[in-house]
Amino acid sequence: MSAHADRRARLVALLVERELSGMLVTTLVNVRYLSGFTGSNGALLVPVEGDAVLLTDSRYQHQAVVEAPDVELVVTRDLVVGAGGRMDAGAWAAETHTLSVDDHGQLAEAAPSARLVAAGRLVESLREVKDEPEIDALRRACAISTVALEGLLAGPLLGRTERELARDLESRMFDLGAEAIAFDTILAAGDSSAVPHHHPTDRVVARGDLLKVDFGARVDGYHADCTRTVVMGPADAWQREVYAAVQASQAAGVDALRDGVAVAASDEAARGVLDAAGWLDRFTTGLGHGVGLEIHEDPFIGGRHTGRLTSRTVLTMEPGIYVPGRGGVRIEDTVLVTPGAPEVLTTMTKDLLEIA
Amino acid sequence: MSAHADRRARLVALLVERELSGMLVTTLVNVRYLSGFTGSNGALLVPVEGDAVLLTDSRYQHQAVVEAPDVELVVTRDLVVGAGGRMDAGAWAAETHTLSVDDHGQLAEAAPSARLVAAGRLVESLREVKDEPEIDALRRACAISTVALEGLLAGPLLGRTERELARDLESRMFDLGAEAIAFDTILAAGDSSAVPHHHPTDRVVARGDLLKVDFGARVDGYHADCTRTVVMGPADAWQREVYAAVQASQAAGVDALRDGVAVAASDEAARGVLDAAGWLDRFTTGLGHGVGLEIHEDPFIGGRHTGRLTSRTVLTMEPGIYVPGRGGVRIEDTVLVTPGAPEVLTTMTKDLLEIA
Repeated sequence: MSAHADRRARLVALLVERELSGMLVTTLVNVRYLSGFTGSNGALLVPVEGDAVLLTDSRYQHQAVVEAPDVELVVTRDLVVGAGGRMDAGAWAAETHTLSVDDHGQLAEAAPSARLVAAGRLVESLREVKDEPEIDALRRACAISTVALEGLLAGPLLGRTERELARDLESRMFDLGAEAIAFDTILAAGDSSAVPHHHPTDRVVARGDLLKVDFGARVDGYHADCTRTVVMGPADAWQREVYAAVQASQAAGVDALRDGVAVAASDEAARGVLDAAGWLDRFTTGLGHGVGLEIHEDPFIGGRHTGRLTSRTVLTMEPGIYVPGRGGVRIEDTVLVTPGAPEVLTTMTKDLLEIA
Repeated sequence: MSAHADRRARLVALLVERELSGMLVTTLVNVRYLSGFTGSNGALLVPVEGDAVLLTDSRYQHQAVVEAPDVELVVTRDLVVGAGGRMDAGAWAAETHTLSVDDHGQLAEAAPSARLVAAGRLVESLREVKDEPEIDALRRACAISTVALEGLLAGPLLGRTERELARDLESRMFDLGAEAIAFDTILAAGDSSAVPHHHPTDRVVARGDLLKVDFGARVDGYHADCTRTVVMGPADAWQREVYAAVQASQAAGVDALRDGVAVAASDEAARGVLDAAGWLDRFTTGLGHGVGLEIHEDPFIGGRHTGRLTSRTVLTMEPGIYVPGRGGVRIEDTVLVTPGAPEVLTTMTKDLLEIA
């Protein structure tokens, strides 16, 4: 059974539990997850009995046959009408968190005897637990990211602009086999490192700067997410203090990413260290998020979030301290939850690097 | 009055015509168009009387103040609930073509006395006619694209891979001031040029190849879209024939992009030339599309599409001939409709280039 067929079988089990006739999947990344199809227009009808049906338009006919060989293919201009025509009188789940009001109306018209039910984030919940091909792709994306950053930091760095360095890093990822960058690279020098999501500028990296790099490679659709912060030359006392606090917080947070641990507890583990060090008020972002086919996906780490971590979930852990006008430090790993100790996929050192 | 305020005033005029109390804009690119806000989470409430209100979350508070200084700002975790609370008992337009069923339900709950009305593609229709800042950004994006491709084609090309050449081209666009590439670069050599949307591979460009490049720069959020096809060395008779047919079709199509011309007529102008040359059955894509804040936006060129072109609309014209296993030629410009002759913004030559 292909990985995609296996995922569909797990979805069908959830649908049967809920006494549904099937589900219409219209969120593209969920269509990809369940079928392998990567085109920009597609929907997947998953009945609890019988074969799944991929609907797409004629532009993607050939690609759909190659990418999703084990589902039935329907080529049509209007996906929801095509899907609705195949829904019988049962209760069918729809992805109402992303399906537009207009498409939902057309679907209801095309399937007059079907009862449409809000599915919630059913496929997203399946995607939280990665299977082998997914973990393999994430490992490769993280390995490429690690090697690329190690190469960049080998220098030279001083005298080059944030933009130049960001493009150099991205170029290294492509050379190493990335299919794309996972998101717009954040590369921030000096006081700009205090801006959590700074866009690289023509600012020149200078001696004494903190240099924060948040970046990742994409492989087979899967995203790596990694941040390291280094100092250009010998760190001063303040830089050392802030770095040590973030490093300790991040280590505690990573260590709490374990099977069965409450999401809120992993949040508290990292947050508590920042609090004890007196820096919690300078931490202004989220602590982490799931990562996979999307750069930000379930589960999100936070005190308000319920639920427990499970083995094979992949998340980031990314505490930081941001002092406007002065500088900031963030350390972030992509981490695989296992039955034992968490496995850090972004393996580059987190010791403070002082780069001459 | 800022360009954004002017756009909102035009929207309000449409709302007043329809006797609506206002509109909730939830499509991000429309929020940007009407306010200047570029964050990844935002909504804009535009009442027909009183100030527009931008809603976003705390991550974007500072950015929203800078980017959208002339609207009221509301920072909230839940955009539709925040907007709904500000809707009175009138009829309010919602973007039901993109608003999710769940968000629509929450909005209706938060605004119990409001009547929600499907707005259609109201803001998209405004966006079809570009104002000065938009045309200026499109001009710059197209100029960067043109110079970048001319630089790439100055060579060397032979012996390098599709991927290397695509990245070289993208790097040139960044050097020239692009903020991003407009879309994944299509760069296809030899028989791969027959694939309309080929992804660059490690195939090496060889003598005798057709080399098709479909690419563009993005500037201030606006996209350029340009395709040129060259021959590596002297063109053979078949390559010349196909090139001449596409060139003549594209010229006829561009010439038909005029104020008052029916969209279907501009489609027929280009298609007719391919048909007369006996190649129409090898033309398998659309002929063109609007381009601006999105790479594909209204209006789309096609025989089934109604409506007439108007001055200040910017569209692509991109006929092609694709012969599987042999090769393909596409020529595409980004074109500004004017009161007189159409203005081609992607100014690189369309004469057949035979590159030694």
